[in-house]
Amino acid sequence: MGRTLTYPKQPSNTVNRYKHRATYDLQTIHTIINTTQVLHVSFPPGPNTPFPAIIPMIGQMGSHAYPSSGPDEPLDCYLHGYVSSRIMNLARESPDGLPVCIAASKVDGLILSLTPNSHSYNYRSAVLHGYASLVEEEEEKVWAMRLITESVVEGRWEGSRVPPDRAEMSSTVILRVRVVDGSGKIRDGGVSDEKKDTGNEDVTGRVWTGVVPVWETFGNPIPDPGNRVAEVPEYITRFVEGMNEVNSRYAREAVKVPLPTEEQH
Amino acid sequence: MGRTLTYPKQPSNTVNRYKHRATYDLQTIHTIINTTQVLHVSFPPGPNTPFPAIIPMIGQMGSHAYPSSGPDEPLDCYLHGYVSSRIMNLARESPDGLPVCIAASKVDGLILSLTPNSHSYNYRSAVLHGYASLVEEEEEKVWAMRLITESVVEGRWEGSRVPPDRAEMSSTVILRVRVVDGSGKIRDGGVSDEKKDTGNEDVTGRVWTGVVPVWETFGNPIPDPGNRVAEVPEYITRFVEGMNEVNSRYAREAVKVPLPTEEQH
Repeated sequence: MGRTLTYPKQPSNTVNRYKHRATYDLQTIHTIINTTQVLHVSFPPGPNTPFPAIIPMIGQMGSHAYPSSGPDEPLDCYLHGYVSSRIMNLARESPDGLPVCIAASKVDGLILSLTPNSHSYNYRSAVLHGYASLVEEEEEKVWAMRLITESVVEGRWEGSRVPPDRAEMSSTVILRVRVVDGSGKIRDGGVSDEKKDTGNEDVTGRVWTGVVPVWETFGNPIPDPGNRVAEVPEYITRFVEGMNEVNSRYAREAVKVPLPTEEQH
Repeated sequence: MGRTLTYPKQPSNTVNRYKHRATYDLQTIHTIINTTQVLHVSFPPGPNTPFPAIIPMIGQMGSHAYPSSGPDEPLDCYLHGYVSSRIMNLARESPDGLPVCIAASKVDGLILSLTPNSHSYNYRSAVLHGYASLVEEEEEKVWAMRLITESVVEGRWEGSRVPPDRAEMSSTVILRVRVVDGSGKIRDGGVSDEKKDTGNEDVTGRVWTGVVPVWETFGNPIPDPGNRVAEVPEYITRFVEGMNEVNSRYAREAVKVPLPTEEQH
């Protein structure tokens, strides 16, 4: 039973538009971050530009101090990815951490309503704010590298050549983001139109309405020409099948209307 | 033949890491923006927070002054979406436009190499910097609403109840971003490992290497319970089939290895 931990509402994370779709629930927010393949990370403009920067990065929530923490508990965000030297240098030069914003968004469906204005997406999105610092300690760094590799394909860390050697450890940079607040937004369901249109038979007789579900598909693994292992390992085929099942089911069930029989599996 | 227009290299948009993957080509960058369902838009921190903000928005490149411009020509970015009042107010209060960063990223495949360090994604990403202003003029606003609606499903503008009425026009906000620079990055191909591992039979005999292609799938359209049109219109089924064909083909061909026969269609 227990209680649900939530991020405190602050000016920087309070959702003002479509408030009924907002969530401050840790488990919901952390799960959206964890299941999004690319996170968008922004940091403030430097001295010579008015523009904030956004970098696509790979990341995962975790607690090195309490590694068994669940997604409903306070967690840091570990980032690894297309780390330009700029964000790394900025983080290195910020004794209290570099203020960053981390965003994750997934589209689950196209909402095709009677009018363009009532068109929408089904989606799940999350935003975290926090302070990014370089992970310096070796044991935490290996732990975070494993956390992130396992988030790409579960089982891959042990399934590849580990541990990283000296050169790999020094060329890899991991950021730990101490999260100070977060928020999420989920839109599901179907079409929503105004009475002026739903009550107009000229319109309803002519405009098809409904939802086109959208999801991320993982294709059959394609072996590298240099691959020497005959069979695709079971943890990879299980990952592909599992993700396709979960993703397509979520997108179709999010519509919340009875599905035709052939769509129910 | 003509020439390829490119964004000028400036400190804010110069790619420093994996430079060989960088592009400054307008057509490439604009196409990544146009085919990404959710753009991430960041703007600088306000007076009471150290954190930049990121908002997921729907957008499309276009030129209202030269509507027939192709994707290889200079274009503005029109944004419509989950516009918090914050970004709208900031844009309204910025006489020269609000400095924003717009990012689009697509994952095309998981690169499963011999070691975690050489793991990667195939991906396409683009970043634009520019100044966002509210579109005030009615004709440009309708034009941009049509541009954005058509980018979700081609044919949908005429396929729905248009034009927007008075109330819809005043409740809709469109931002026009005057782009000052941009850059893109594309990673394709397969696994890339170092000789220390490819030459080690203990490793190559044990670790499967290859690529898991990833793409966005559009499911069968699910009619709304209130829908009164018997058949899904042809422009929607054509859109679903076309996107699935293009997306799955790109992800598999990006690997750049000969595909098994059953994967070639």
